[in-house]
Amino acid sequence: MKNVDQNTITQAVLERMGNMPDARLKTIVTSLVHHLHDFAREVQLTEQELMHAIEFLTQTGQKCDDKRQEFILLSDVLGLSMLTVAMNNQKPAGCTEATVFGPFFVEGAPKVALGGDVAQGAPGQPCSVSGRVVGSRGQPVVHALIEVWQADEEGFYDVQRPELRAPQARASMQADGDGRFHFKTIVAEAYPIPTDGPVGALLRAMGRHPWRPAHLHFMIKAPGFETLITHVFRNGDQYLESDAVFGVRESLIADWVKQPDGNTLLQFDFVLNESHD
Amino acid sequence: MKNVDQNTITQAVLERMGNMPDARLKTIVTSLVHHLHDFAREVQLTEQELMHAIEFLTQTGQKCDDKRQEFILLSDVLGLSMLTVAMNNQKPAGCTEATVFGPFFVEGAPKVALGGDVAQGAPGQPCSVSGRVVGSRGQPVVHALIEVWQADEEGFYDVQRPELRAPQARASMQADGDGRFHFKTIVAEAYPIPTDGPVGALLRAMGRHPWRPAHLHFMIKAPGFETLITHVFRNGDQYLESDAVFGVRESLIADWVKQPDGNTLLQFDFVLNESHD
Repeated sequence: MKNVDQNTITQAVLERMGNMPDARLKTIVTSLVHHLHDFAREVQLTEQELMHAIEFLTQTGQKCDDKRQEFILLSDVLGLSMLTVAMNNQKPAGCTEATVFGPFFVEGAPKVALGGDVAQGAPGQPCSVSGRVVGSRGQPVVHALIEVWQADEEGFYDVQRPELRAPQARASMQADGDGRFHFKTIVAEAYPIPTDGPVGALLRAMGRHPWRPAHLHFMIKAPGFETLITHVFRNGDQYLESDAVFGVRESLIADWVKQPDGNTLLQFDFVLNESHD
Repeated sequence: MKNVDQNTITQAVLERMGNMPDARLKTIVTSLVHHLHDFAREVQLTEQELMHAIEFLTQTGQKCDDKRQEFILLSDVLGLSMLTVAMNNQKPAGCTEATVFGPFFVEGAPKVALGGDVAQGAPGQPCSVSGRVVGSRGQPVVHALIEVWQADEEGFYDVQRPELRAPQARASMQADGDGRFHFKTIVAEAYPIPTDGPVGALLRAMGRHPWRPAHLHFMIKAPGFETLITHVFRNGDQYLESDAVFGVRESLIADWVKQPDGNTLLQFDFVLNESHD
């Protein structure tokens, strides 16, 4: 097709996909092309702005490495991650709600026994966490696999500290035969998402702060249950109403109770949804 | 704002941009967020698909370097580049039409005198190109700055040949006092856009070929005129109806006339639009 104009080009692109073998991918790309073109027409995108966008995306890709995922950050701050979580995790009432995965999970975290130390030297105030993993009828999720990861009191995950030789403040553990777990760690603190890359520049341009309220990340897996990816947020945090990635759910906020001896106690139970695959 | 769902999150993201200082950027990001969220809802994007998309964008960014711009390729094959060109280059009748810039332009191409050799050893059949740069009333565009770049007979630009130590088949020259130019080069041939990266994988998944019809790139600048970025396409090419980047315009197709002596002649005049800044 020759001589496409700003309106006919959309159909020209879609017609070119007539032989697309994967029906699901065709659905996705068709919708993407429609919205991408509608967006460009709606704002009357200039050639210079398109080049700025290309440069921004290039820098975003080049900021990524094995410890940094700038496109997840971008998806997070634009609300796309939380939107996708919300669409895909509509669980029955009573089940623990999901929230964003974030860019800081690492495969192969240290295995820690129940009662063990997750912090492994990360700076922070001492904290003891305990709870139980149950199914939607209250039955124990025996030996559920629990991954936990968090920022330290300076607001950094271990992967943000290049000087570290070993993981800190992340662990993998198994609940006991009654679904119960407990471990020692440090008190999670509010922190800014990384602002030294293109996404930080975008947040500044948007007049937005980069802070996330204090939270512990959990990913809990067990046969017969949907995997739960969520946080437990710390009650009283000043950023609960303005999380930079829109991840806060009322049901995930818990009291982190400071004890007279300086230790902080957090108790939180997780309710998994049975899988129906 | 807490407890956003798949519908309320869009408004939550937009409200967070209330303090955005740059009005134009606010317009762009507002439309982007609307379309991005609508797209995700329309296709009911899964979390796994979002991660695939993030991976694709990351790979696209990481394929870019000083000689390769994979995001321009992506914009080209999705029709976004040509859409943007079409919106921003609505010139009066009679002016030469614009088309896509493409990813192969290089700043600082060798300066070549009129009549000089642009090919500089690039493989191909000999070709002599001549023409005139005029304004919309036919007046000569005196000493117009002409940048020309092209693929060789194997379908490669110089920047795609890592063994080369110097530019080939690209040059910068100035028209004479009557707006006329002529130079020697090689006959441009059809070529596939680079398919060894994420965009190539996407084209294969879409069941699309990667070919562009043979063309010479031109960028022509002169004080008092709008910069013209365009191609001259070679009449008879089999890909004129299915250019991988949707860039062909009937008015840009010219006869490349093979002479008995083996040389090919191309004659093409450019009509620039007066700038009104």
